[in-house]
Amino acid sequence: MKKTLLASAVAALAFQASAGTVTHDGADLVIKTNGGFSVATTDGNFSFAPTGRFHLDYNDYDGVMAPGGDDGSDAWFRRARIGFKGHAYDFAYQLVYNLPGSGSIDVGFLTYTGWGKMANLTIGQQKENFGLEELTSSNNITSIERSLPSSAFSTGKNVGVKLHGGNDLFSYSIGVFKNDIDDENELDEAVTGRVVFRPYYNGGDVFHLGAGYTMRSGADADYNARLGVRGGDAGNANRLRARYREDGTVLVGDRDDWNLEAALIMGPFHMSAEYFQGEIDVDDRPVTIDAEGYYLQAGYVLTGERRGYSTGSGAFSGVKPANESGAWEVFARYDSLDLDNSNPLISVAGEQGDTWTVGINYYAKSLVRVGLNYVRANTDENIAGEDRGDAIVARLQVAF
Amino acid sequence: MKKTLLASAVAALAFQASAGTVTHDGADLVIKTNGGFSVATTDGNFSFAPTGRFHLDYNDYDGVMAPGGDDGSDAWFRRARIGFKGHAYDFAYQLVYNLPGSGSIDVGFLTYTGWGKMANLTIGQQKENFGLEELTSSNNITSIERSLPSSAFSTGKNVGVKLHGGNDLFSYSIGVFKNDIDDENELDEAVTGRVVFRPYYNGGDVFHLGAGYTMRSGADADYNARLGVRGGDAGNANRLRARYREDGTVLVGDRDDWNLEAALIMGPFHMSAEYFQGEIDVDDRPVTIDAEGYYLQAGYVLTGERRGYSTGSGAFSGVKPANESGAWEVFARYDSLDLDNSNPLISVAGEQGDTWTVGINYYAKSLVRVGLNYVRANTDENIAGEDRGDAIVARLQVAF
Amino acid sequence: MKKTLLASAVAALAFQASAGTVTHDGADLVIKTNGGFSVATTDGNFSFAPTGRFHLDYNDYDGVMAPGGDDGSDAWFRRARIGFKGHAYDFAYQLVYNLPGSGSIDVGFLTYTGWGKMANLTIGQQKENFGLEELTSSNNITSIERSLPSSAFSTGKNVGVKLHGGNDLFSYSIGVFKNDIDDENELDEAVTGRVVFRPYYNGGDVFHLGAGYTMRSGADADYNARLGVRGGDAGNANRLRARYREDGTVLVGDRDDWNLEAALIMGPFHMSAEYFQGEIDVDDRPVTIDAEGYYLQAGYVLTGERRGYSTGSGAFSGVKPANESGAWEVFARYDSLDLDNSNPLISVAGEQGDTWTVGINYYAKSLVRVGLNYVRANTDENIAGEDRGDAIVARLQVAF
Repeated sequence: MKKTLLASAVAALAFQASAGTVTHDGADLVIKTNGGFSVATTDGNFSFAPTGRFHLDYNDYDGVMAPGGDDGSDAWFRRARIGFKGHAYDFAYQLVYNLPGSGSIDVGFLTYTGWGKMANLTIGQQKENFGLEELTSSNNITSIERSLPSSAFSTGKNVGVKLHGGNDLFSYSIGVFKNDIDDENELDEAVTGRVVFRPYYNGGDVFHLGAGYTMRSGADADYNARLGVRGGDAGNANRLRARYREDGTVLVGDRDDWNLEAALIMGPFHMSAEYFQGEIDVDDRPVTIDAEGYYLQAGYVLTGERRGYSTGSGAFSGVKPANESGAWEVFARYDSLDLDNSNPLISVAGEQGDTWTVGINYYAKSLVRVGLNYVRANTDENIAGEDRGDAIVARLQVAF
Repeated sequence: MKKTLLASAVAALAFQASAGTVTHDGADLVIKTNGGFSVATTDGNFSFAPTGRFHLDYNDYDGVMAPGGDDGSDAWFRRARIGFKGHAYDFAYQLVYNLPGSGSIDVGFLTYTGWGKMANLTIGQQKENFGLEELTSSNNITSIERSLPSSAFSTGKNVGVKLHGGNDLFSYSIGVFKNDIDDENELDEAVTGRVVFRPYYNGGDVFHLGAGYTMRSGADADYNARLGVRGGDAGNANRLRARYREDGTVLVGDRDDWNLEAALIMGPFHMSAEYFQGEIDVDDRPVTIDAEGYYLQAGYVLTGERRGYSTGSGAFSGVKPANESGAWEVFARYDSLDLDNSNPLISVAGEQGDTWTVGINYYAKSLVRVGLNYVRANTDENIAGEDRGDAIVARLQVAF
Repeated sequence: MKKTLLASAVAALAFQASAGTVTHDGADLVIKTNGGFSVATTDGNFSFAPTGRFHLDYNDYDGVMAPGGDDGSDAWFRRARIGFKGHAYDFAYQLVYNLPGSGSIDVGFLTYTGWGKMANLTIGQQKENFGLEELTSSNNITSIERSLPSSAFSTGKNVGVKLHGGNDLFSYSIGVFKNDIDDENELDEAVTGRVVFRPYYNGGDVFHLGAGYTMRSGADADYNARLGVRGGDAGNANRLRARYREDGTVLVGDRDDWNLEAALIMGPFHMSAEYFQGEIDVDDRPVTIDAEGYYLQAGYVLTGERRGYSTGSGAFSGVKPANESGAWEVFARYDSLDLDNSNPLISVAGEQGDTWTVGINYYAKSLVRVGLNYVRANTDENIAGEDRGDAIVARLQVAF
């Protein structure tokens, strides 16, 4: 009788397991949802996840930031992306599409991870890894818009090959990328490298020192950056700018930029600073454009969480709220970009500009983030009759 | 020995559970596929689902509907979308991309649901909630194209903030949205509200009465609607139209529209009617454009299913076939749009127009729907030499 | 006591099942990830899977292939796509978006499978099924670019209705498709059919003989194909071309093309050959354009795997590596396209051209593929001053 009971108990369990059972035909799986979704095999061999984000911004700006010096305001998608990522054994990939405008590929790359964490090889459209703030995901930058020099010296995401790695002590990356195609249909290339040392790192707190270099052929003879605010959907806020044109066409040349980085995370406090310098030698013309800039930023997470940091990329990650009421962060930043060039052939707008940005972020779970920034901008020379402006910038971020 | 048997039975079960096991590292999960996919935690805290649809249409139209009065025909994607939706605790989001043309964001919004179903706050690109037919998903409208007045008075999907809710008795929504950007880069706004009362609602059958209002600054001085058929991929079917232009440019003005709604679901029978009236005061010109329209529609689900209805949005949802052979629905609609304007500066095409639409829908599971409509259109004044036309419109809909 | 033990064992199992349990509210599910993801019910009634791919290419080409006869080189996304597929009972669908450029719908179709594998009905944007190489997925073609005649006689993916099926002995397809819209907004149609016989098929090895035919109204008076290399992101490699224009505009006409196919798979060896012939009768003009072409290709999988083959579509599928070190394949192809036309009104570039292509493929798991091709092209007449050229083409393919 006990056997019968046992048998029926086992049978009952088996039935229970069979009604509504979810199985995998190979390795065991772990599935997660936290508003997004991921699946992975427990043996670590395979994974897959859809990804997406939108950054819905509101801008209200005036003075030197606004075309014509008038007020401007807009509400629009600063970024919206959908895509997929996954891995099979030693191959990891991402493919992400930018939705705004008429759409574009954000990234599409394959990383070979089989040589260990000190030597990842990434092929495809990706970040070049030049600059700490540039390398920090737009989901995780503290301010709403990156600093003046990070914008002016941005390398963007390009098709190329990059070797990169990192351990607790240091991170590096070196790559060659497509910068552009010249007028004879041939590749213009960029070579970009970066090293980061961590004199102190305890798994959370970190002291970060870094340097980067990029040399680019076929680069537009143009350094520019908007003054801390994008200026709505059309992105038409005024720019600090130095460029060289003939008959309305921007010429191209060889560009060489380098930077220095320092960053610190100590519990809820974090700060970072970068210095950039660069010059563009215009092809076949006796013209060189110089640019220089820096920023200094400090932030504090009022609810006590520590801002994240990735040794793999040598960059900040996000703030994860420790409890359900979310996390609050305040920050301030000063940045400056100097485009003073004595050559009268170079058209310069604003010459030297700087902005003060103060802001507050609210992190409601990992899915949702809200930011509010106030920006004050000054320029040495008038742009559209103004040398000073103010902006309010707000963002709703959803990222899964 | 029985212990051994038990132990081995338990061991066997444990093994069975371990080979091909699917687990979650937190709360329990429920996963569904019915051709699409969704995952949710059983505690209700998290969910995620990819979504998509395509509406593949065939049009054959002539007379007043066709440019030049000739016949026209086309087969093309009227709509195709992919996206994701999900929620984490009290935050729900959707991000959906329109694929046709060069692509565009359909919706991207976050809804805060923490104040209960009577006070949802939605931020982002979304419907403004003006008009019953406009608010009913394009997957669920009974006809293939919405009525003349629903098209002419459409507010579209816009970036904004909307407070909305509903219970069995009534639904409401009130929001402020970006209507456009003026020529000085400043936001032109729209404020839109709607209330719906349900004198009768038993969870399925419903008697619905509603009213809406929208006021919009920077609105194009243009009321228009195609005559019940889109006219192929290029959307070039003729339009009933009243607009004000100077030197070929449509001016802008303040637009005020309001509507009344009535709807009824009684078992397999459903009907709906809306009346719209609006006017546009052109900025800085002594010009006002008037428009007025209405429609009356009745449908019957031959296989006995009841058309769905959502009290949250105060709008129709779809017909779910009760058995595997699918559901059949027939309907008829009369609609009218009156753009008669006495001001000779206003260019008017067609003046007053109306269409009769009859059609049949087949719902094969929730994934697939097929519709066939016949449309007869009449106008008071000739458009391209014609005041009468006929169209056959067919649709294959796949929605997951 | 044994009862107690039993009960506690059962309780323990029940608890184990409840912590981290994943269930489905209906039929049992099978979930898979191999870098991608799929879910299906074990009863076969439902399934769903996201899909995606990117083909990242590098081109270096010169001589007759290059505009101006100069060298050209580029690295870019030849293809990048994301989408979804699934099925519910007898309805299967796919919806896939092309990401490069400003984006476009790749496919969006519904297949009714309820009549069995010999009579599938597919409605929507799809391949027309004309030509073996054209019908083989771009993920699975042996070379990086399809042959000259496959390109010149390509029907592309079009909106239409196709009946198709296949068993071990033969496959067929017949469909009617939208070719274009004429200048009076009316559909120009194409009718396309194909039959394939398999005198030998043992489930892996196959001997394949096929023929196809397509007649198209409103077709551009233009046969053309690039010379085995695309020529970078802009696709500006030179083309073999015969076309008829008036005042710079390509006229349209009736196009009739047919082909013959032969293919063989014997263990790791596979070969294929196709012959194409076609002509375009220009509407209302005494002008007929002729074209003819063929290719012969042979490949060998060095690691012993057999190239796949689908009897449903009558086309090759891919090479699946048998072990973790991946699979290697070599191949060679000769192709020729003859656009010699005696009518002096027809502008002909290159007249007759052929290419030799040799290449090697590495398949690392099913997710990743790498290909390297060398192409030598010759033309009868100079294009841009050259009648000979060489190219190196490399591809990184990620497909999930």
